[in-house]
Amino acid sequence: MSKFEKLMSLLPNEIDAALITEDVNRRYFTGMKSSAGTVLVTREKAYLIIDFRYIEKAQKTVRDAEVIMQGKLYEQINALLEKHGAKTLAIESRSATVEWLNSAKSAIKAEIDSSNALSDAIDRLRIVKSQDEIDKIIKAQRIAEAAFEDVLNFIRPGVTEREIGLHLDYYMLLHGAEALSFDTIAVSGPNTSLCHGVPTDRKVQPNEFVLMDYGAVYDGYHSDMTRTVCVGKPTEKMEKVYAIVLDAQLKALSEIKAGARGADIDKTARDVITEAGYGEAFGHSLGHGVGMNIHETPNASPSSKHVFEENMIVTVEPGIYLPDEFGVRIEDFVIIKNGGCENMTLAKKNLISL
Amino acid sequence: MSKFEKLMSLLPNEIDAALITEDVNRRYFTGMKSSAGTVLVTREKAYLIIDFRYIEKAQKTVRDAEVIMQGKLYEQINALLEKHGAKTLAIESRSATVEWLNSAKSAIKAEIDSSNALSDAIDRLRIVKSQDEIDKIIKAQRIAEAAFEDVLNFIRPGVTEREIGLHLDYYMLLHGAEALSFDTIAVSGPNTSLCHGVPTDRKVQPNEFVLMDYGAVYDGYHSDMTRTVCVGKPTEKMEKVYAIVLDAQLKALSEIKAGARGADIDKTARDVITEAGYGEAFGHSLGHGVGMNIHETPNASPSSKHVFEENMIVTVEPGIYLPDEFGVRIEDFVIIKNGGCENMTLAKKNLISL
Repeated sequence: MSKFEKLMSLLPNEIDAALITEDVNRRYFTGMKSSAGTVLVTREKAYLIIDFRYIEKAQKTVRDAEVIMQGKLYEQINALLEKHGAKTLAIESRSATVEWLNSAKSAIKAEIDSSNALSDAIDRLRIVKSQDEIDKIIKAQRIAEAAFEDVLNFIRPGVTEREIGLHLDYYMLLHGAEALSFDTIAVSGPNTSLCHGVPTDRKVQPNEFVLMDYGAVYDGYHSDMTRTVCVGKPTEKMEKVYAIVLDAQLKALSEIKAGARGADIDKTARDVITEAGYGEAFGHSLGHGVGMNIHETPNASPSSKHVFEENMIVTVEPGIYLPDEFGVRIEDFVIIKNGGCENMTLAKKNLISL
Repeated sequence: MSKFEKLMSLLPNEIDAALITEDVNRRYFTGMKSSAGTVLVTREKAYLIIDFRYIEKAQKTVRDAEVIMQGKLYEQINALLEKHGAKTLAIESRSATVEWLNSAKSAIKAEIDSSNALSDAIDRLRIVKSQDEIDKIIKAQRIAEAAFEDVLNFIRPGVTEREIGLHLDYYMLLHGAEALSFDTIAVSGPNTSLCHGVPTDRKVQPNEFVLMDYGAVYDGYHSDMTRTVCVGKPTEKMEKVYAIVLDAQLKALSEIKAGARGADIDKTARDVITEAGYGEAFGHSLGHGVGMNIHETPNASPSSKHVFEENMIVTVEPGIYLPDEFGVRIEDFVIIKNGGCENMTLAKKNLISL
């Protein structure tokens, strides 16, 4: 079954066709990156309507959808809907803007379904990864890990957080990353207690932590990792807190498998931290899905309803943040399998003293 | 008049209140960067409802709006609407998603105006820049220009497009840019004919063009510039085409002033290029506005309806693209004034041979 057939099988029977315009979703279905283009999926056939800039590439690379040169877009959509007898058209409620819907409603001669049906169906498809997608995510992760090995030779007292972050960015972009997964977090000393800190011009001091949370994008797919390393010698408290976070992560990792619940995995890690007396200092969720977006389903959080299935992906990133002192976060990400999980993160996570 | 009062004065009388949730718009009105928060503007008073992560900063820095700690957001909104007797609430049609509107409609006890009224009013406010905004844009441009001076010492045969782009990025981010205005374009040789080319691993060869289109963000405000330089000695044709593009740009610049029309300025530049025999090779608009977004109104394009006003900003970026040969684009950006314009771009634009 093609992705388009799978998509239509997930939609309620009364929906005859689906319109996909969001950039990442379009890339997911067509395999082709572009900044414009419209995918129309009917119960019989799928179409990619795309302008002259992309037409040649689309004709060469897109399978499963008929490629049509864009002219008067809405007239083309109406003609195809009529051809296939499609009376109800679902749109992507989660990304379409209100302005766009208003104009589409007046231009498209079909009843528009603006519920979450299509967005939910797309999320449902994208949550389980194919081997091809997993391969790309692993390539992205290998780029990030090479950057980690490289930056360890760069971090020393006197370099700034900004320089560390840019060192990682520059390395990844020069070694195959098409983009950064998100704005790199590189923080030091007391700033490591800010769980979403922005790199500053603060200079790294001896005997403190540096926390790096970052990732690479390879062919549209994201990676995500966090490592906390010590410059010089950690205090006993730093060692103790690091060990608790690592213990929480390893316990959570050991329980992830198809059938496990996101909320339970979060609890496993949270219990370790709470029992060690730091429950209040772990103020975020344990993890999230990763794929063509950096944040996807499934979630591993106290309120998560997700039950893991084979070939879903989730991050495992417990942390302890002690304001004005320091913070520790250790993040890997895994592919869920029957009976366990495969850790895609190979970077070492014993406490490194540089 | 505060920005909020100006905004309400631009909305139709039947609209009692406005809800601003889009990140950039919220930052424009509050002066504070955040990844969450809701601004509610009534005819009497404005409110910023924001969560615990930002509350302290908001209370310290936000003027003109009462800062409220976010609890049950929709209950808070309903209470404020009731307090001010507001029955019709406008939302940002241009950024709000359909999913969000569906949930807001069921939660908010007011009639929702989902026309473009609010988005249009915000655009109308943002199109004219204050001196404070102009100062920030100029700071962003100075960072980009320093990067240009620096990269000229780096460009030589053998370096790759990717390395040139990353050199610019690294320089800007290390010297005060909070972000890049957009993905930097750095292309060489025949790739310069792709007007939105992505840097590749192609190595620069002797006697060819390198085209760089990039910008820095400073405190939320973007800059945008393009320079085309020659590595080694240009051919006669390269010199000729460069001179035509520069001539087109200078003529357009000489006609920009309050009262001029975007379409006319585009035509001025386009006529120079067409008369030189390259009309078909200038396949994009002459320019666009720049501010908190990289692409804003007003436009200078063949179909533009905009009439320039004092303190609007517009780019002036003619180009000639000859497939399989080379391309040239030269881009400055200016503040429109009565009787003329002020060019914010100081980087030299005579044909440089490196």
